[in-house]
Amino acid sequence: MKGEIISVGTELLLGQIVNTNAKYLSEKLALLGIDIYFHTNVGDNEGRLKECLNIAFKRSDLIITTGGLGPTADDITKETVASFLRLPLIENKEAKDWIEKFFERLGQKPTPNNYKQALFPEGANILPNKNGTAPGCIIEKDNKIIVILPGPPSELIPMFEEAVYPYLKSKTSEIIKSRVLKIFGLGESKVEELVKPLLFNSNPTVAPLLGDGYVTLRITAKGHNEDETLKMIEDMESKMRGILGEYIYAVDKENMEDVVVKLLQKNNLTLATAESCTGGQLSGKITDVPGASKVFKLGVVSYSNEAKESILGVKKSTLENYGAVSLETAKEMAQNVRKIAHSDFGISTTGIAGPTGGTPEKPVGLVYVGFATNKDVYVKKFMLRGNRSRIRARTVLHALDIVRKYLLGIKID
Amino acid sequence: MKGEIISVGTELLLGQIVNTNAKYLSEKLALLGIDIYFHTNVGDNEGRLKECLNIAFKRSDLIITTGGLGPTADDITKETVASFLRLPLIENKEAKDWIEKFFERLGQKPTPNNYKQALFPEGANILPNKNGTAPGCIIEKDNKIIVILPGPPSELIPMFEEAVYPYLKSKTSEIIKSRVLKIFGLGESKVEELVKPLLFNSNPTVAPLLGDGYVTLRITAKGHNEDETLKMIEDMESKMRGILGEYIYAVDKENMEDVVVKLLQKNNLTLATAESCTGGQLSGKITDVPGASKVFKLGVVSYSNEAKESILGVKKSTLENYGAVSLETAKEMAQNVRKIAHSDFGISTTGIAGPTGGTPEKPVGLVYVGFATNKDVYVKKFMLRGNRSRIRARTVLHALDIVRKYLLGIKID
Repeated sequence: MKGEIISVGTELLLGQIVNTNAKYLSEKLALLGIDIYFHTNVGDNEGRLKECLNIAFKRSDLIITTGGLGPTADDITKETVASFLRLPLIENKEAKDWIEKFFERLGQKPTPNNYKQALFPEGANILPNKNGTAPGCIIEKDNKIIVILPGPPSELIPMFEEAVYPYLKSKTSEIIKSRVLKIFGLGESKVEELVKPLLFNSNPTVAPLLGDGYVTLRITAKGHNEDETLKMIEDMESKMRGILGEYIYAVDKENMEDVVVKLLQKNNLTLATAESCTGGQLSGKITDVPGASKVFKLGVVSYSNEAKESILGVKKSTLENYGAVSLETAKEMAQNVRKIAHSDFGISTTGIAGPTGGTPEKPVGLVYVGFATNKDVYVKKFMLRGNRSRIRARTVLHALDIVRKYLLGIKID
Repeated sequence: MKGEIISVGTELLLGQIVNTNAKYLSEKLALLGIDIYFHTNVGDNEGRLKECLNIAFKRSDLIITTGGLGPTADDITKETVASFLRLPLIENKEAKDWIEKFFERLGQKPTPNNYKQALFPEGANILPNKNGTAPGCIIEKDNKIIVILPGPPSELIPMFEEAVYPYLKSKTSEIIKSRVLKIFGLGESKVEELVKPLLFNSNPTVAPLLGDGYVTLRITAKGHNEDETLKMIEDMESKMRGILGEYIYAVDKENMEDVVVKLLQKNNLTLATAESCTGGQLSGKITDVPGASKVFKLGVVSYSNEAKESILGVKKSTLENYGAVSLETAKEMAQNVRKIAHSDFGISTTGIAGPTGGTPEKPVGLVYVGFATNKDVYVKKFMLRGNRSRIRARTVLHALDIVRKYLLGIKID
C-alpha cells in the first residue's frame, strides 16, 4: 500500500512548530509495511489544500491528513475533503452529544462554532477524541482510504493508536517489526565500518543513525507472522552483539540512565554524585527514572571551590596544587561523596564546559570523571568536543557508562 | 515572492528524523516576507523527486531543496535538478580543491565518489560548505530561483545565514522583523483572553503559541525600513507589557534561567539550591548559563530523608511530624542550604513527581518550593498536572520564577 501524509496548518509554513506528527505517523506506518512516499505541509487554505488532495489522490492509496479540525473559521480540513470528494457534511449525533457533555463538564455552553466539529463527510467512520473536542474520521471511496486526524499530538497519538493502527493493520498482511540498538563509546563512522557487511542485508535491514551523543542501529524485519519476524530480528541482534559487544548499552526506548538505575536496583546498590561541570544534570538524569529514590542517596553540586572543601571535604592542598579540574580533585570528590552519603558508589565530574575558562594546559572540553567503590577509585580523563551544552551532556553519558560497565563487570578502560 | 521547500531523504519518510530544516528555513523566509505555501518531503528517488520539482516549478518562484548532497550513490538531488532543468553537470575547480584539502587534513585520500560533490549544474552559483564536504548552490533559470542546500542542520544553517539569506534579502524590498515575548504563570487561554483585541491586528500581527510550560506571543511587523519596523514592534510590545506586566519574563531566545542568572549577576547576589523532587534539574538549568559559577554556590540533591537530615540539617521531628513533602521541610531546606553555602538566597523543592508515591492527602503533583533570604522565608504550594517529567520541569520553572520575582520586587503571591 502506498501512502502519504498531508499536514494542514499555517503555523507549520511559518516555521512556528516542527511537524512531529509526520515523523510519528511515518514510523508507525513503516511498521505496518505501508510505503510512505511523500509528506506535504500546506496552510489553512481551501484552494491549496484541494491542490494537495488532487495530487495525492492520483498517486497514493492511503492519505492521512493532520490538523485543521478546530472550531474556528480557519479550520477547514473536513470541509475541504468533503467538497473534494463531493460528499455532503452530515451532523453526527454522538459527536454532538460528546461536545455538549465536554462543555457541560467545564460549566460552559458550546458556541455555534463548536457544533462544526460534529459535522462529517457522509459515510465517514467517526474516530472519538478522548483528549479534545475534535473527532477524526476514516473515509473509504474509489478504492482509496483517507484518514482525517486532529493536529495536537496529545490528541492525534492516542486516536491513531486506538483506532487507526488496528484499522490499517486489518488491511495489510505483512508483519513488520523493528528494534533499535543504542551504542555509546564508538563514533558513527567506526560503528558503520564494523558492521558494514550487515548494512547491505535486505531482510532484516539495518540502518545506522546518529542520536544525541550516541549511535543507533535500527533492525527492521518483514515476515508473515510474529514469531518468524521476531526470530529474524533476534538473529541479527546477536550478530551485532558479537561485533559491538559491550558498546551496546540499551535497546529500543531505554536510556542510559534507565539501564544504570535498573542495574543498581537489581544488585541492591546505591549511588551518590558529586558534580562540578555538569551542575546537577547527572543527578537530574538519574532521578528522571521512576523509582530512582531507592538507589540514589545524595547529590552535591559543588560548583565553587569553597563548596568542594566545606561540603565534600576535598583537601585545600589538592585544590591548590592540582586545581579544581584535575584527576586528584575528581578522585577525592568521588571518594568523599560516597562516604558522606553512606552509599556503595560515589561518582564525580569536574571539567571545563566553556565557553570561557579554558587555558592552554586545561582547554575547554577537558573533563575528569571519578568513580569510587568500597575498594577502589577510578578516574577517567576525557577531551570532549562541542559547545557547553554538548560537553555537559556527554560528560553525563560517560559518567553513567562507567557505572554501567562496572556493574556488568566490563573493564573501565 | 512565493516559495516552497522540498526536503529529500528517505529517513524523513521512515520517520527516523524530524524535519527541523523546514521549520528553520520557514521561520527565516517569513522574516524576508517570502510566502511559503508548501513543504514536501520526498525520498532519495529520482522519479519522485522530479515529480515534486515539476509540481513546484508550476506554482512557486523560489524552490529550496535540502538533503541528498552526500557522496554516495543514493544522494541524487543535484543530479536530478540538473536533469530536470536540462543543464549539464560541470566540475567546479574550487570545490574540487576544497574536497582534496578536506581529506588531506584528515590524512586520507578522496574516493571517486567524493568528486561527485564537486559537480554542479552549469551556471550555478556555488555556496561553500565550511562544515562538511557538500557545497550547496543557487541556480536562476526561467525567472525561478532554486537553492540547493545540504541536509545536516550543522551545515545547512551556517550556509543559509552566510550566503542564502543575504542573497534573498537583495531580491526583496520589504523588511520584516519579529519579537517573541515569553509568559509564565498564566495559561494559554487566559493569555489569549487578555490580549484578544490585539490578536486581530494586521500589522504588526500577534500570534500566541504554547511553549513547553510557558506561553509565547510573537509580534511580527512589516515595514519599509529598519527603524519603522522596530518602532511598530516596540509599540506593540509596550501594549502587551501594559496588559501582561510581570508575567512576561523573557524576550526572544532568552530562557528563565538566563534571566535569573543575569539578575543575580547584576545585583552581585548568590544562590544555593536544595532539591528533592527535581533531583538536580534546578541546579542543572542554572549552571547551563555560561558564567553561572559567579552566582551559584552549592546544590544539594537530598533525595533521601537521611540526606535531608545529615547534609541539610532538616530536623528529624519536622520530617516525622510533617513528612518530606511539606511546607515545613521545604522551609528548612531553603533556610539551611542558604546558611551552609553562605549564599544570599536558598531555594528548595520537595514534591511528589510520580508515577507512584502519591496518597489521597499528598497526591502526585503536590510540590512545595521554598525560598530563603537573609530576612525571610517563603514557601509556595503547587498542584501540578502531567507526567513525572512535566511535573519536574514545571517545578524548576516555578522555582526560578520565584527568584526572578523577588529580584524584580514583584510580590511572590
